[in-house]
Amino acid sequence: MVEVLIGPASRELGVKVTQELNLKSILVESKVFPDGESYIRIPEEKIDREIILIQSTYPPQNKHLIELFLMLDAAKDLGAEKITAVVPYLAYARQDKRFRPGEAISVKALAKLIEKAGADKFITFNIHKEKSLEFFNINSINLSGAPAIGSYFLQKGVVNPYVVAPDEGAYNLALEVSKILNCECTYFEKKRDRITGVVKTEAKELDIKGKTAIIVDDIISTGSTIANVAEILKSQGAKKIYAVCIHPILINDAQNRMKMAGVDEILGTDCIPSEISKITVSKVLAEALKREL
Amino acid sequence: MVEVLIGPASRELGVKVTQELNLKSILVESKVFPDGESYIRIPEEKIDREIILIQSTYPPQNKHLIELFLMLDAAKDLGAEKITAVVPYLAYARQDKRFRPGEAISVKALAKLIEKAGADKFITFNIHKEKSLEFFNINSINLSGAPAIGSYFLQKGVVNPYVVAPDEGAYNLALEVSKILNCECTYFEKKRDRITGVVKTEAKELDIKGKTAIIVDDIISTGSTIANVAEILKSQGAKKIYAVCIHPILINDAQNRMKMAGVDEILGTDCIPSEISKITVSKVLAEALKREL
Repeated sequence: MVEVLIGPASRELGVKVTQELNLKSILVESKVFPDGESYIRIPEEKIDREIILIQSTYPPQNKHLIELFLMLDAAKDLGAEKITAVVPYLAYARQDKRFRPGEAISVKALAKLIEKAGADKFITFNIHKEKSLEFFNINSINLSGAPAIGSYFLQKGVVNPYVVAPDEGAYNLALEVSKILNCECTYFEKKRDRITGVVKTEAKELDIKGKTAIIVDDIISTGSTIANVAEILKSQGAKKIYAVCIHPILINDAQNRMKMAGVDEILGTDCIPSEISKITVSKVLAEALKREL
Repeated sequence: MVEVLIGPASRELGVKVTQELNLKSILVESKVFPDGESYIRIPEEKIDREIILIQSTYPPQNKHLIELFLMLDAAKDLGAEKITAVVPYLAYARQDKRFRPGEAISVKALAKLIEKAGADKFITFNIHKEKSLEFFNINSINLSGAPAIGSYFLQKGVVNPYVVAPDEGAYNLALEVSKILNCECTYFEKKRDRITGVVKTEAKELDIKGKTAIIVDDIISTGSTIANVAEILKSQGAKKIYAVCIHPILINDAQNRMKMAGVDEILGTDCIPSEISKITVSKVLAEALKREL
């Protein structure tokens, strides 16, 4: 019988998924020693041959990554033979190519290490570039949290929605959400000013007046792109503005910045637990795991 | 011609070693993105097939470890075929066995990852337990910083030295130093109180009056053991007390604690750079590397 190891960085999501799957869960113990080193213990004498390990790698990314490596190693030592590593948010995914010679392609290095540390299969959500999965030699799967976002707004009974991608890169994700909500969808374009070098979102006329705008992105970090888009939507008469993402990294005053620009509510999924992570990907993940088991 | 990559955690030691060896050095670029992810770049179009990479992994250990992994990967991408990874202080070396079932043997997990990330040979200084080297499948070498400590005190012209190990585990290291200084050496024993469970250093009578006590340990972290020993030595009339270590981790108020107990000067090596790391292991390391090249 498959068992689920729940890492310290994905406690709530781990518990929800295990309940959906009706499997035995094991909460991995962790602590930090006074010198800053992490400690990992799987509180069992023996575990099943087939294991699902859930651990996200949001900030502090390096700590969560080392914990992931230590858990994979400890699980192998306890008898695991096939480990599916579920990493809802994969850190370092934005360094997916060499922008200048000599740069580390960080996501490639980490993919190799996750595999070598003991993962036999890899599952993540909305990785920055789908192509990065090619860095894994093991079977790797990129799930989309769009159905979770869609369900959330359907249940909420959102009125007159209009889904907006803040840039072209987020359009596919936004489109997925809009199909579930059966509503319009568009994306904004960013242009670099040829003199100042500043990247700016180009305004475009939308039929948004009186509607509920749902800005959808994969990651919200500084929130500045979202803020630009929100200002445009507000000026065009949007009645309510949501900013929704899969991975709420939310650096510094990201939330304030977006609210000042007219965003009414900021939401994320529990790929990264936070006070605004009110949307759970547990059902999407459970269904994917059922298919794989 | 062998080239030396100097990681962000071992700048000064790296430069000194490269000068000793008269090799080309490359300072690896690093920064931290606003979200907390590390960036690594080797500022070259191509590097030599044979590379020495120096990066210590003192606190923040997880950051320095991830940087090490990224540098190994980037070096391989640039054409390195044989990489000697020099990690003067190896983090997680104290978790070298399973104290309770299910624990991660952290140093084993990391040894495997350093190897898989691309190291072909491994060199460290005064690893917590020599036996941990067995976790490496690649050739691994444990150097001793004792000659560096010995030379430092010889050059200083220390008068009437007496080398003291604060516990039995540090005796071999202390003995090495005492042989260079051609002086007496002893160690203290720790006993656990059978009722309170508190571990205490047992006092013993030494011929230390008027002498210069040099307490030698591999790591100083909280400084509490050293403080206990210093009090004993002070009460027996030691004229001056040095506390010297290979790896100055120095948690919280370690320095104050030791000074309050009578330590006159605290010294460490540049295996971990710090304000008290006045002893360099560069010569020891350069000689070892010459033997290996």
